Amino acid sequence: MFADRLIERVRSKQTPLCVGIDPFADKIPALFGDVDGDPAAVLLKFGAAIVDVAAKHAAALKPQLGLFEQFGEMGYAAARLLTEHARNAGMLVILDAKRGDIGTTAEGYARATLGAKPGFNADCVTVNAYMGKDTLAPFIALAESAGKGVAVLVRTSNPGAGDIQDLQVGGAPLWRRVGEMLAPECDRLRGACGWSGLMAVAGATYPEEAQALREAMPRALFLVPGYGAQGASADDAVAGFIAGPQGLEGGVINSSRAVTYPPAAQAATTLAEWRKAVEQAILAASGELRAACTR
Amino acid sequence: MFADRLIERVRSKQTPLCVGIDPFADKIPALFGDVDGDPAAVLLKFGAAIVDVAAKHAAALKPQLGLFEQFGEMGYAAARLLTEHARNAGMLVILDAKRGDIGTTAEGYARATLGAKPGFNADCVTVNAYMGKDTLAPFIALAESAGKGVAVLVRTSNPGAGDIQDLQVGGAPLWRRVGEMLAPECDRLRGACGWSGLMAVAGATYPEEAQALREAMPRALFLVPGYGAQGASADDAVAGFIAGPQGLEGGVINSSRAVTYPPAAQAATTLAEWRKAVEQAILAASGELRAACTR
Repeated sequence: MFADRLIERVRSKQTPLCVGIDPFADKIPALFGDVDGDPAAVLLKFGAAIVDVAAKHAAALKPQLGLFEQFGEMGYAAARLLTEHARNAGMLVILDAKRGDIGTTAEGYARATLGAKPGFNADCVTVNAYMGKDTLAPFIALAESAGKGVAVLVRTSNPGAGDIQDLQVGGAPLWRRVGEMLAPECDRLRGACGWSGLMAVAGATYPEEAQALREAMPRALFLVPGYGAQGASADDAVAGFIAGPQGLEGGVINSSRAVTYPPAAQAATTLAEWRKAVEQAILAASGELRAACTR
Repeated sequence: MFADRLIERVRSKQTPLCVGIDPFADKIPALFGDVDGDPAAVLLKFGAAIVDVAAKHAAALKPQLGLFEQFGEMGYAAARLLTEHARNAGMLVILDAKRGDIGTTAEGYARATLGAKPGFNADCVTVNAYMGKDTLAPFIALAESAGKGVAVLVRTSNPGAGDIQDLQVGGAPLWRRVGEMLAPECDRLRGACGWSGLMAVAGATYPEEAQALREAMPRALFLVPGYGAQGASADDAVAGFIAGPQGLEGGVINSSRAVTYPPAAQAATTLAEWRKAVEQAILAASGELRAACTR
């Protein structure tokens, strides 16, 4: 099961760090080539260079599909090939696609993201539940049969997250009701470790909410965005974690910009310098999260 | 503005019919080739054949991106090329992508769908608002500057739509609160015709809800799924429309399977037979909706 594989990585790497790959045309160093010239080649080279470092030090990889799609079908293809590369390098890939649709279209998206080639064959995919439980069913069914995971948006990390998610429904915010709706489904993707691969996206920028969501979804692994560049601290990020064999555990914490575009990497003049700077940033985040989990 | 262009099509074609293209591997007739052999070529040939008929009789085209993505990057590319083909044929294209993400990623999705090449350059894109108003902003900003539209999921047509959308928030269902949240933004994409290109997705399978949503969003054009194969009647489908110069108006009504896979087309042995069968199905739906609007 995906939950077992993910928690095994977290324990063996001794950190819940998930490295996000967000390809920004104006941030990818020229060392990797001209992104306007051959975007697919540059995205792949940049992504593979991150994977080579992240595979040693992080628990998972999260490519942000929207930032690949801005480069068109070549960007889409690069994201799929990068997913394949990362899995071959031994990483678990959480594809950040935030899909959601009804019936047969949801089946299409499930195959596209979790399914084998021509799908991404990702280990887990992020989905949006606004359209209802039946729109999640095809993702959960495919995940169940293929030993994969599904990460549902519950409480996101952005400033406007509360516009809809915080609306009060019977004395509790909507995000909590979404969590309560999902909780019974967690058993379907539950691993031998006790955790479920039906993950909840729970933003690090709202630590109290993450604690409350943990009550509503005791078995769900959390995918926590917002740590690092979005402003949340390591302690905020692990607010929804609970005691495990090696300290606090309960999901993975994503960092994208802070670990893939650190100032020293942006200033690097050689790939070796870039690699060293990115490795230091990943080690710093990894260590900071390890410390927060073992305090 | 997109709203003016869309309502002009509805009036000139005298029907609010939007033809949906949902590529199912097991439904595309063998006349178009072997979808397992060269999916992109088959999807394009099938899609272009539909466009050739739909351009004459329908107000808009709605490619369902998830069903293209199931064929991988070649399917994604086929959807973009089909969008280009349909626009060259004079159609307005509402790309059904249901995207939604924060900040810079939302900008990426906006460029990917509404932006010029390598983007789809679609006329309008469907988006999911669960993550909040700030996640819609990049789509609305790009739509405003490029004269395009954005269709936000409010009340969808699927059986489980109510799981989240019907939760009661201060005495009204969530979908109505979402509509109220969007209403002030409608002015930004409002055309000379008075309608706004900030569309609301309002499922035909819930006609009473469509009427209530019209009160909450008086200016929003509706994108109405659920007519035809999903079981809603033409009268249900136009429930959210109001009196206009030629009868009821207020958006477009989508039909996908009923007009693109009618039994006579599935039984056709030549492309000419297929074309005739699809044209008859489109004319039947177009006429039924016209009648519902002018009763």
